[in-house]
Amino acid sequence: MDKIRRNERMTAMMKILAGAPNRIFTLNSFCEMFGSAKSTMSEDVDLLREVCRSFDLGEVETVTGAAGGVRYRPLVSRKRAGEYIADLCEKLSGTERVLPGGFLYYSDILSTPDIVNRMGEILASEYGSCDPDFVLTMETKGIPVAFATANALGIPLVIARHSSKVYEGSAVNINYVSGSGSIETMSLSRRAVRENQRALIVDDFLKGGGTAKGMVELMREFNVSVVGMAFVMATTSPQKKRITGEKSLMTLSVTEGEPATAVVRPAAWLSDLPNGD
Amino acid sequence: MDKIRRNERMTAMMKILAGAPNRIFTLNSFCEMFGSAKSTMSEDVDLLREVCRSFDLGEVETVTGAAGGVRYRPLVSRKRAGEYIADLCEKLSGTERVLPGGFLYYSDILSTPDIVNRMGEILASEYGSCDPDFVLTMETKGIPVAFATANALGIPLVIARHSSKVYEGSAVNINYVSGSGSIETMSLSRRAVRENQRALIVDDFLKGGGTAKGMVELMREFNVSVVGMAFVMATTSPQKKRITGEKSLMTLSVTEGEPATAVVRPAAWLSDLPNGD
Repeated sequence: MDKIRRNERMTAMMKILAGAPNRIFTLNSFCEMFGSAKSTMSEDVDLLREVCRSFDLGEVETVTGAAGGVRYRPLVSRKRAGEYIADLCEKLSGTERVLPGGFLYYSDILSTPDIVNRMGEILASEYGSCDPDFVLTMETKGIPVAFATANALGIPLVIARHSSKVYEGSAVNINYVSGSGSIETMSLSRRAVRENQRALIVDDFLKGGGTAKGMVELMREFNVSVVGMAFVMATTSPQKKRITGEKSLMTLSVTEGEPATAVVRPAAWLSDLPNGD
Repeated sequence: MDKIRRNERMTAMMKILAGAPNRIFTLNSFCEMFGSAKSTMSEDVDLLREVCRSFDLGEVETVTGAAGGVRYRPLVSRKRAGEYIADLCEKLSGTERVLPGGFLYYSDILSTPDIVNRMGEILASEYGSCDPDFVLTMETKGIPVAFATANALGIPLVIARHSSKVYEGSAVNINYVSGSGSIETMSLSRRAVRENQRALIVDDFLKGGGTAKGMVELMREFNVSVVGMAFVMATTSPQKKRITGEKSLMTLSVTEGEPATAVVRPAAWLSDLPNGD
């Protein structure tokens, strides 16, 4: 076999690392793949790290220790996140997407891969340091963005259902008060999570917070701690939600009138720049 | 600014291209990013193509014409797909995952990003040439794999619901006969798809085919043609489904007994090697 050049090694490594965010690959696995010495691979990794930094493409990290190796983490700065979300808000604002009852149509946004992946990377950048074991969402609309967040964090997704299903096995059901005031059921398979794990809640929409509070209670039943709660869209009214400490990407208010107009804005925390970036 | 080296350009391009499969990036956008001449970028692209081939990492394609540029496509050969699915089948077979009623627990598999992304790439490799405009799934369990397939194809995901929702706007509802023989409703927002588009159906489970047939009928209401149907798991019984022409990744039969045992096998088409690979 011809000797493999540095640019070939680096390109292949980038593809492999970025295709599995947060998963640790041993240097040895790359040494075997390319037939290179460990010192050469270390240099390659240093260069990869530099490229990702220069072009704002995320982070390549070396993890030391017995289970050590290299991993890639998407990392979107708040500045870039804020700009991206601001563009999205512009698309969603106006009269065109307002539905009868003051609802906003944005299901298309919630299932367009480019957009969903970017939102997932933003949320993963924000919550990676909370070290969640899995992402929890409540069916249905938030599943793609919750999946993208789980993917960017390299952890599983867990989906709570409205009712228990025969193909989920024995389940824990709880009742909760929904936004409309009705009593609803939330169900999760016993096999889905383990005690003492850490959950990151991700969902598409936050109004009163009833469903989110239900998810928190569901996690309590499993002895799982909730380390963060994130939503794509939060209504400005009611201002007081049934949960606290959550972050949303956008806020929504719909002004009455003929026609009604949606005002969608990036959430305030996106303009905080805690890391000096 | 220092001159950007080839290995830096190639690494950054790989990350950008592979992060947005099937999306066309113009050579000019890369020229601007790196401050390089078009001829240099063309050479880089040729090298990228070679690296992807050598390491079986998918395809980098040059698209000619006015809307031309470069794109990346995940491409999993049937051989590799078959091997991957065979490993998965082994995990799923046996007594541990069988639930009362002969159901199989595999919700965890359906929401583990690594596995789901791989299944999405396999299905995208199989159906890319059918040129679908969007992926259609029916809530809930198939959403992650349908999303991963849509992502790998660079097209939107569309999710049909069990009932119409206020935040989806006006919708088309159809009734269909489910596996258990009951009449169920399937609903899709009018805004979700346009006439004359091409749909690829992706779902998690195929037994009798009632839900799948419902999706086909739903598409007919929208004047959309179905160019393919793919499922993660199909039961071996009943052998005759209400649809034809579908592909599943795995087949499932549960043998009676104490305890009952699941036999999960890779689907037959995965061992056909039509492209000589």
